[in-house]
Amino acid sequence: MSAKTINVALIGQKFMGRAHSNAYLKAPRFFDLPVNPVMHTIIARDLSSLKKFADRWGWANATTDWREAINHPEIGLVDVTTPNNKHKEFVLEALKAGKHVACEKPLAATLDDAREMRDAAKKAKRCKTFVWYNYRRVPAVATAYQLAREGRLGRIYHVRAYYLQGWASSPDIPLIWRFDKEQAGSGSLGDLGAHVIDMVRFVTGDEVEEIVGSISETFIKERTIPSGVGGAGIASGAKAGGKKGKVTVDDAVHAIGRMKQGGIFSVEATRFATGDENKHGFEINGEKGSVFFNFEDLNNLYYYDATLPVHVRGWTKIQTSVPGVHPYQAAYWPTAHPGGYEHAFVNQAADMMRVLGGEKPEIPLPDFDDAFETQRVLEAIELSAKQQAPVKLSTVK
Amino acid sequence: MSAKTINVALIGQKFMGRAHSNAYLKAPRFFDLPVNPVMHTIIARDLSSLKKFADRWGWANATTDWREAINHPEIGLVDVTTPNNKHKEFVLEALKAGKHVACEKPLAATLDDAREMRDAAKKAKRCKTFVWYNYRRVPAVATAYQLAREGRLGRIYHVRAYYLQGWASSPDIPLIWRFDKEQAGSGSLGDLGAHVIDMVRFVTGDEVEEIVGSISETFIKERTIPSGVGGAGIASGAKAGGKKGKVTVDDAVHAIGRMKQGGIFSVEATRFATGDENKHGFEINGEKGSVFFNFEDLNNLYYYDATLPVHVRGWTKIQTSVPGVHPYQAAYWPTAHPGGYEHAFVNQAADMMRVLGGEKPEIPLPDFDDAFETQRVLEAIELSAKQQAPVKLSTVK
Amino acid sequence: MSAKTINVALIGQKFMGRAHSNAYLKAPRFFDLPVNPVMHTIIARDLSSLKKFADRWGWANATTDWREAINHPEIGLVDVTTPNNKHKEFVLEALKAGKHVACEKPLAATLDDAREMRDAAKKAKRCKTFVWYNYRRVPAVATAYQLAREGRLGRIYHVRAYYLQGWASSPDIPLIWRFDKEQAGSGSLGDLGAHVIDMVRFVTGDEVEEIVGSISETFIKERTIPSGVGGAGIASGAKAGGKKGKVTVDDAVHAIGRMKQGGIFSVEATRFATGDENKHGFEINGEKGSVFFNFEDLNNLYYYDATLPVHVRGWTKIQTSVPGVHPYQAAYWPTAHPGGYEHAFVNQAADMMRVLGGEKPEIPLPDFDDAFETQRVLEAIELSAKQQAPVKLSTVK
Amino acid sequence: MSAKTINVALIGQKFMGRAHSNAYLKAPRFFDLPVNPVMHTIIARDLSSLKKFADRWGWANATTDWREAINHPEIGLVDVTTPNNKHKEFVLEALKAGKHVACEKPLAATLDDAREMRDAAKKAKRCKTFVWYNYRRVPAVATAYQLAREGRLGRIYHVRAYYLQGWASSPDIPLIWRFDKEQAGSGSLGDLGAHVIDMVRFVTGDEVEEIVGSISETFIKERTIPSGVGGAGIASGAKAGGKKGKVTVDDAVHAIGRMKQGGIFSVEATRFATGDENKHGFEINGEKGSVFFNFEDLNNLYYYDATLPVHVRGWTKIQTSVPGVHPYQAAYWPTAHPGGYEHAFVNQAADMMRVLGGEKPEIPLPDFDDAFETQRVLEAIELSAKQQAPVKLSTVK
Repeated sequence: MSAKTINVALIGQKFMGRAHSNAYLKAPRFFDLPVNPVMHTIIARDLSSLKKFADRWGWANATTDWREAINHPEIGLVDVTTPNNKHKEFVLEALKAGKHVACEKPLAATLDDAREMRDAAKKAKRCKTFVWYNYRRVPAVATAYQLAREGRLGRIYHVRAYYLQGWASSPDIPLIWRFDKEQAGSGSLGDLGAHVIDMVRFVTGDEVEEIVGSISETFIKERTIPSGVGGAGIASGAKAGGKKGKVTVDDAVHAIGRMKQGGIFSVEATRFATGDENKHGFEINGEKGSVFFNFEDLNNLYYYDATLPVHVRGWTKIQTSVPGVHPYQAAYWPTAHPGGYEHAFVNQAADMMRVLGGEKPEIPLPDFDDAFETQRVLEAIELSAKQQAPVKLSTVK
Repeated sequence: MSAKTINVALIGQKFMGRAHSNAYLKAPRFFDLPVNPVMHTIIARDLSSLKKFADRWGWANATTDWREAINHPEIGLVDVTTPNNKHKEFVLEALKAGKHVACEKPLAATLDDAREMRDAAKKAKRCKTFVWYNYRRVPAVATAYQLAREGRLGRIYHVRAYYLQGWASSPDIPLIWRFDKEQAGSGSLGDLGAHVIDMVRFVTGDEVEEIVGSISETFIKERTIPSGVGGAGIASGAKAGGKKGKVTVDDAVHAIGRMKQGGIFSVEATRFATGDENKHGFEINGEKGSVFFNFEDLNNLYYYDATLPVHVRGWTKIQTSVPGVHPYQAAYWPTAHPGGYEHAFVNQAADMMRVLGGEKPEIPLPDFDDAFETQRVLEAIELSAKQQAPVKLSTVK
Repeated sequence: MSAKTINVALIGQKFMGRAHSNAYLKAPRFFDLPVNPVMHTIIARDLSSLKKFADRWGWANATTDWREAINHPEIGLVDVTTPNNKHKEFVLEALKAGKHVACEKPLAATLDDAREMRDAAKKAKRCKTFVWYNYRRVPAVATAYQLAREGRLGRIYHVRAYYLQGWASSPDIPLIWRFDKEQAGSGSLGDLGAHVIDMVRFVTGDEVEEIVGSISETFIKERTIPSGVGGAGIASGAKAGGKKGKVTVDDAVHAIGRMKQGGIFSVEATRFATGDENKHGFEINGEKGSVFFNFEDLNNLYYYDATLPVHVRGWTKIQTSVPGVHPYQAAYWPTAHPGGYEHAFVNQAADMMRVLGGEKPEIPLPDFDDAFETQRVLEAIELSAKQQAPVKLSTVK
Repeated sequence: MSAKTINVALIGQKFMGRAHSNAYLKAPRFFDLPVNPVMHTIIARDLSSLKKFADRWGWANATTDWREAINHPEIGLVDVTTPNNKHKEFVLEALKAGKHVACEKPLAATLDDAREMRDAAKKAKRCKTFVWYNYRRVPAVATAYQLAREGRLGRIYHVRAYYLQGWASSPDIPLIWRFDKEQAGSGSLGDLGAHVIDMVRFVTGDEVEEIVGSISETFIKERTIPSGVGGAGIASGAKAGGKKGKVTVDDAVHAIGRMKQGGIFSVEATRFATGDENKHGFEINGEKGSVFFNFEDLNNLYYYDATLPVHVRGWTKIQTSVPGVHPYQAAYWPTAHPGGYEHAFVNQAADMMRVLGGEKPEIPLPDFDDAFETQRVLEAIELSAKQQAPVKLSTVK
């Protein structure tokens, strides 16, 4: 193991708190890194559950006093996994304290918050910032990026970004926290859409020029309030005679637009695609080649090479869990012993350590500046849906 | 064979002329019909090629005089397969003459033409009209229709209609007739989009309420004029130093909108989806179930039944070429000896004969009234793209 | 249409009688042939149904007197589609009469019959012989053959031939004719296995050296005798209290062996693979490349090119219904408007006409000599299963 | 975390040493267990690399003295991951010392060794034994087991177990340790075949009755000796002019046979299936239903329910990474955030802890007695290949 280390303070102990803890635990075991993360302090509001969490995952300290923890002189990196509308406060404090910052996606719940965070990051010149658009490090996505960089797509015509879940399509699903804007920060657009917008910006290297049309829909406007209020996750069927409350987020968003380099694109995010569990990814059609990715089949990239002779041309299923295909697999297991959901987080933790150790990862990491661009797209999509009119990205600053 | 017959006059000897000839040839051989079609007269402009065509396919007569042929007292059914902008003239003449009329899709090149044709059909009370939206009779599409009628989808949330081809994505493809509005009548929207709009109207039983946004794009604005001008089909690479001419149709169209019963939908038609040869169909997500169809896999329907126990729930690949699944397979071959592209035409020819014989086919046939609704959607998509604004269908009459 | 013609006498009006009638009807319409088939005489035992059949399909004459019909001076080609155990009698008569002969597969029900037929064909030097191993002309299979001929597979290691149906797996299926050796001629081995053995011999260009082990199994030994005895096709559930009769054919066969050039192979044929409707084809793994084909997905060939760079290597789905990929599609419809089951018959009828017109088809046709080799493999598989011991092909003559 | 713990001594630091270390590290973090594993001592021959390994993975002690370590009073569980021919020595010592034992698969390199180990385990009544047939805990395999237990397959007709890799198919691959029986213990049969034999015994609940035929093949008999002898993994292309050495293991094995309850089965294991990276699993066809599993698509199980109405019947892709489908996913991430290769090891480590804590895991663990049955099948396959004759399992004791 490397001699250099950095102490991490992690805020949040829910789904993402676990995913990041697992990433810090595993990254130095599988990768040889210039700097190793040390699981120093875990921060959250409920101390009793936090102690158990710290014990389970190996965090040396647990505290509810986030301000003190962030400013602790031993801490080098602050990692924020709270709901989107809480990102700003923690991030600004960490940057002020001169810490490197990692933040869950999307950067913020509003464009104003995101702008403030980006500007603070610009000023804090010695601080590195990272945003957990971790899907860039799914092997198949990293491979798509590399094929595009090799010039294998050529001029890009069509970009389709989609994130299709179906869990909310039954009216029997009660009013859990994810349907509440206050608690969740955003609906399908921020939760799901943000990921795939980042992915297509990343793979194409192109930016959105204009949102031409956008639909934001809440199919089921009211749901039964669950008996155990505030339950995390999908509660089972609501009680008979239960009161109803309003759904305050979007169930689905579908927008179309134009890319700067002349392609047209589409973004879909929904929780009502019955039958799709976690189907997200992209279809990108270029002059010389095309790529297709679907997270439900996360270890494979589909590639069409239009330059091959016609009688051997077709969609090729590239197993990206083969060493030599992408830059992470060799760290884990032999050929085609594939990884799962969590490995993209481990890969990102490893690459963050590389950046902090002065190295340049093969697959670029998104910083606040980069994530702000995705935030502008989210804003333009919302605006277009609200105004029922096209929105040029140049007007969203 | 049945004793009753009807004499057919077919206009056009190109791609659709062959497809319909084959359909009339085969329908009475595979199906027991109340009325059998007789291949009486083939009509087109070039008599020399027409004689060969008639000989090959068994048309008893061949003529260039369409007016005389249409009005011939022996003719019972006039079938029109010319370019879209020529449909009206032939159709009106046939209706005036009191003939039954079948017309290729889309009904017309413009909404005005389509309206005139629909109105003429309404007046000609004794004439049956048919439009060749033949994909309704692809076994997998017919099966989707039947599952929807059984109530297996429930409230519909998402409708995606797509028609993805990639043949035009290279700038080396010369300026063939398909890129010329004058000759082709329409670009990807009329050629491809019309089919899938009909399909989703048919399967969902719902209608479009509003186009919220629409993009119509010509990616490659100029192409080299091929040496042999007017070549049908895709000519090989253009000559060096060849002159360039303008592409006057759309290469791709993508529109989003709302359905009357509350779902949201998307229509995509493109010739620039490199890698996709003839990928068209639909994804429809409902409360109780979902269906997915792709013509490149034309004998299978994918169905998700959300009412099954969770541990056996998933997308089911239904082989529709099994007798008992859909209403046409039994006429052909034993189980899972599947059909191809042409069989949807044969099935439609058979069902047209059933209607003319007073029977009601299990799968409804589109008449002019029905096809006019699809034409309104095409018009709204074009308008929305031109005006860069939402268009309510109620304003398109 | 071509001026030259040949008069065909077809024996049999069941499944294959229809398939061949359709092939003769369509071949000259889609292909430009040096000789066109004329549907002269249809021969079968039941004259009343035969008249209807002739009327429906356009056979000029219908007769029960097979000997007279075969020897009729106008007849040029005799085509035999009766049960396997009846092939010999008709074929020998036709060869004696100096006619060209086409025979359904397998060549015969026994090796002795097949040998006699092959020898008669050898003597009848002016007669061409054909066997309806029609799957060679499925576009994907023809493409596999061509890739192999280009040297894209290299030394072949593994050959898997499989034919998996599931229709007989329920004990409720009654004792239809297919379970009776007397009526059917053979069980799964002759009915299904013969096809895939021919396919792998054809694609690899290699021959079987030895059967190392073989299992022949009848899972359900007795079935209820259906009320309407002798029903063709799968009758619905048997009556309660119905008498039982013996199944006298194999339900499934699985054999393994060695190829002459050093590969190992496996042949599976079954009617008990519940869930598989008509899944048959091959997997062939070579040093430089591999191919995979499954008839349930008949328009696609899967090809792996081991000579490509590792990061773009994978199984490629080649849509063979693209003109330029295989030698038949251009005759039918534009790109990726695919064919179905029946088109392989039409393609074979067309190629038979080419041979009779002195041309050499791009995809070789199997003659009696070729089909006799497949028969030897069937015999060796049966022998090995009976003797429970390896059988060298050199001992089966 | 639970108060109870057990100290583990792990022998081996190669591929499996890492996989097991990762399993012990993660199991108590994701699962609530009655006993937690403590990573006490790692044992291997090379002390210098071992220290680094122990440091990286968190083993408290590292030693080359296996005898002392095994007998250390603090150790409760000994885990053996050495080559197969070394299993016996360590296992017998551990059982003698009264320790619980976990052993990598297959149980041993020979049936004699395996028998001795099984008998020793029987005598050591207080010792629990486990064999790492970890694929039983891949979610899709566990789901198949549960569907079978629910009676959803009915009488089983066909069992196909396959393990297809292609990495060795090029003659340019040098003579690495895996081609050397001395170093590797076995070729494709023991390395690959053992896994899938265990899987089908597990899912069907049935045992092999007889091997009817078996082929064991070494396609490439000699390979170039790599310059750096003894390299683990696949070395790059051999040097020109390099000396050649003999391959002493099988490249591929294919056997067919009969199951006790009347089904027929097939086992294939190969490293020469060019194009297949790590394709292994099973096809099981029963009277009422069928299941299909392929590790290259490890989160999905394909299931056919023959009891559904015909028009909605088909192969269903069950996403097993949905909580409620199988008994492990809930421990990790929300629905359809799937696991990878390593999770089957974590699941097994968790279940071993449950057994040691007196609980009964939902999915049974294989002990030495169970693994001995798989060893008998391996032996019968080898014998049949050697003798070129059928081998009854009852003769292999």
